Amino acid sequence: MRTCYSLLLTAAALTAGLKPPQRSKAIRTTARSAAQPADLCAQLLNEVNKCNDLGDGVALLPLIVDGHKVGELRPELAKAVADAGTAFRIDAGVVRLDAALEAADEPARTEAVATCIDRLAKDGVVTGWRDELLPVVASYSAAPAFRVERAAYPLLGAKGYGVHVNGYTFDGDELRVWVATRASTKATYPGMLDHVAAGQLADVGGRPGEQVLAELAEEAGVPDELGKRAAPASVVSYRGVAGEGKGERVTNEVLFCYDIELPSSFTPRPVDGEVEGFELRSVDAVLADLVRGRFKPNVAVVTVDFLVRRGFLRPEMDGYLALVAALRSGDCS
Amino acid sequence: MRTCYSLLLTAAALTAGLKPPQRSKAIRTTARSAAQPADLCAQLLNEVNKCNDLGDGVALLPLIVDGHKVGELRPELAKAVADAGTAFRIDAGVVRLDAALEAADEPARTEAVATCIDRLAKDGVVTGWRDELLPVVASYSAAPAFRVERAAYPLLGAKGYGVHVNGYTFDGDELRVWVATRASTKATYPGMLDHVAAGQLADVGGRPGEQVLAELAEEAGVPDELGKRAAPASVVSYRGVAGEGKGERVTNEVLFCYDIELPSSFTPRPVDGEVEGFELRSVDAVLADLVRGRFKPNVAVVTVDFLVRRGFLRPEMDGYLALVAALRSGDCS
Repeated sequence: MRTCYSLLLTAAALTAGLKPPQRSKAIRTTARSAAQPADLCAQLLNEVNKCNDLGDGVALLPLIVDGHKVGELRPELAKAVADAGTAFRIDAGVVRLDAALEAADEPARTEAVATCIDRLAKDGVVTGWRDELLPVVASYSAAPAFRVERAAYPLLGAKGYGVHVNGYTFDGDELRVWVATRASTKATYPGMLDHVAAGQLADVGGRPGEQVLAELAEEAGVPDELGKRAAPASVVSYRGVAGEGKGERVTNEVLFCYDIELPSSFTPRPVDGEVEGFELRSVDAVLADLVRGRFKPNVAVVTVDFLVRRGFLRPEMDGYLALVAALRSGDCS
Repeated sequence: MRTCYSLLLTAAALTAGLKPPQRSKAIRTTARSAAQPADLCAQLLNEVNKCNDLGDGVALLPLIVDGHKVGELRPELAKAVADAGTAFRIDAGVVRLDAALEAADEPARTEAVATCIDRLAKDGVVTGWRDELLPVVASYSAAPAFRVERAAYPLLGAKGYGVHVNGYTFDGDELRVWVATRASTKATYPGMLDHVAAGQLADVGGRPGEQVLAELAEEAGVPDELGKRAAPASVVSYRGVAGEGKGERVTNEVLFCYDIELPSSFTPRPVDGEVEGFELRSVDAVLADLVRGRFKPNVAVVTVDFLVRRGFLRPEMDGYLALVAALRSGDCS
């Protein structure tokens, strides 16, 4: 069976451009392996909730533009933002654009906000400058209220959108997961475990599938013909204050989750220096590293979602429902 | 390729008991087929939200036992329940067990509640008697506050748990879905479309996977050896007031969703008279019937979740996120 399938994958599919069947495997028995403790779901929930942790007693002021909430700020930050120029004001516990800007169009708002954010960068409040604008929106399908430097959007508590790709391979009957190790030089989460490819969406309402193809090529050397096998499968969302990594202090994210089965003959390779390397791991090893907190927190959320969808976590396990519920804790819109 | 795979499925796997690979297929292009309208996700959301519809201006009184909310009742029903014997009382807008029952154990509570429900049945308030007790719980892992006749638990707004199985087959490269037609004699949703197998869980904290095996055998004639391929993949939850079907007026449900790939040589067959027959449908046909409201409402929710997980609905489609969010609208605990 295995020989036949491998033959199909390598000879027929990759050479001739055919698309072989993707197999979806799951643990077939309800037996728990020795590596899986009885409170596995509770331990995983603990990791998932690192992305849902707002901290103790953190008050947040809503950022309202055009009648919609598009962000939320800690009070001290809201004051700093309001004091840094004329773009923002605080009005009865609500952060708003300056009244004149409310009536302006998006480019004018974006320009005024940029002046404010520049000042905050000079003051050391905004760090990790990326020189990339991200839209500030109420939802994925809404028109941007304005755009803001990527390093600043978490400070506003603005929603972010990303794509994450679960890469896996079948070793005979066993599903194994491709895990990346982030470069030790990364500003955020250096040395932690990551997906084969992931990326922030630079705009909303676009075509995430195309970005998946690009990220797979840029981050893992996956050619487009193979990358096209990646298919959307889920969405995770979370909202919290992350304690680690400059520019990632507030998270209010929606991640489009894709899966790609890679043929056993293919090995991802670091292309853009974002990761040190890739390793094919057993599900038990992935679970152990998840529990140990070795994965970048939002990668842990997407990976747990993958393991739920593939049947490696089961309703018979204590805490299964709470874990599944936590995967879409944030505003999924 | 197809010949090789079919051979594996039928000759090797079914005869010799081997487990062939399950293939997970998805639409590989972002092209929308002619059968899929631009507002497909919005139309599907409309169907999903049939299960999330609480109606206009429906006030609900919480049912609190042991300090936890275990149900919710419409005011007129709460009054009927409180008036039917001594089991329940209304205290400042909250429905509670009688004080003596609060201190009693579960069997004593269940007995007292049964007397109350018997009266309501005699009065015609509880209809469609099933002669089966269901647990009333705050969550799946909680001990039952008491047990109640199945026909009455929706009237209390108690949480219900079920298993639903998405059955599918590959016809070459094309994923096709097995759809059942409910018997015209069913008390609820006669003649509507349904899963290959589904069932209410008679208890909580149990082993849903074992019930999946039993339902597959009882409802669709799937032998255990084949049924074991069913794997848990997701959870949907919803909360609303369904307008159709006696005994299904209040829904506050969590459904464990399983997937099973059936070999192309296997045809499900009606066993227990619950369904008239099974039909293998294309995804486009399933989408068309979903939009037309031909599926039993909660089956529609699970089927949409399946199509999301298999990549037939994509982030590029308008309304994708709202649809995904709606699949876990209820209390998933």
